[in-house]
Amino acid sequence: MRAADIATAMSTVVESMPAREAARVLAAQDLPGLIVVDGKGRPLTVLAGTQVLRMALPSYCQDDPALARVIDEAAADVILAGIGERTVADLLPKNRPELPAVHADATLLEVASVMARSNIPLVAVVDSNRVMTGAITLDGLLDRLLL
Amino acid sequence: MRAADIATAMSTVVESMPAREAARVLAAQDLPGLIVVDGKGRPLTVLAGTQVLRMALPSYCQDDPALARVIDEAAADVILAGIGERTVADLLPKNRPELPAVHADATLLEVASVMARSNIPLVAVVDSNRVMTGAITLDGLLDRLLL
Repeated sequence: MRAADIATAMSTVVESMPAREAARVLAAQDLPGLIVVDGKGRPLTVLAGTQVLRMALPSYCQDDPALARVIDEAAADVILAGIGERTVADLLPKNRPELPAVHADATLLEVASVMARSNIPLVAVVDSNRVMTGAITLDGLLDRLLL
Repeated sequence: MRAADIATAMSTVVESMPAREAARVLAAQDLPGLIVVDGKGRPLTVLAGTQVLRMALPSYCQDDPALARVIDEAAADVILAGIGERTVADLLPKNRPELPAVHADATLLEVASVMARSNIPLVAVVDSNRVMTGAITLDGLLDRLLL
């Protein structure tokens, strides 16, 4: 079995996309993060879901979650207002994690090694032009390896 | 809406459980990690799936994933052999991340704040004795907030 056999299709985002829209893409997928690609569809980095929350929430909420409790506003409104008009690029951390990528014919052990190294539960599968053709999640990998 | 309304049931593991068994529990759930509880069911920490891979894979695989490629052995066998007879406690990193927990009546904004702070896409929901009654995933939270 090879990487291509366990890869799944996945919506990607580009850096210029409004972050609100990206947050909805994230919510619509059952995934730990969003893969950010360049204009040619080549994976650049991953935007973790927790990073989206961190950028969206007022800092006083994060410093003291008990304060969040007393805010008499719907959480969705606070988060969407917090994201504001920013783009995906604005939400990415300064030190962007490199999204690991493997070729379609990578072995499962190779995929596991790449994932273990990166500490990110997502690996992009790319073709010979480095264009993303799918992605492998930790869960998808473990399903095939251990179940 | 409160934390209890968006919490899902989740299999937990204890520190004395064989790590191989825990890896199968992880694979069977569509989750980013395993919640480790004490003998009374109180959440202690979270074992990330990538950590399981990191502990299981031979270090030469992680140092150079290209080496993993030439190993003529099934990935599952390498991983299960790598885990060996260790327990969950043996797989936990030395600096255990604290698993954030909220009470059943926490607001969604409070949950979002706790999750943003921890950088872990899982929050345990606990009762007044700190016994875990369920968990909230980033995905579950975003589904309710943004869809």
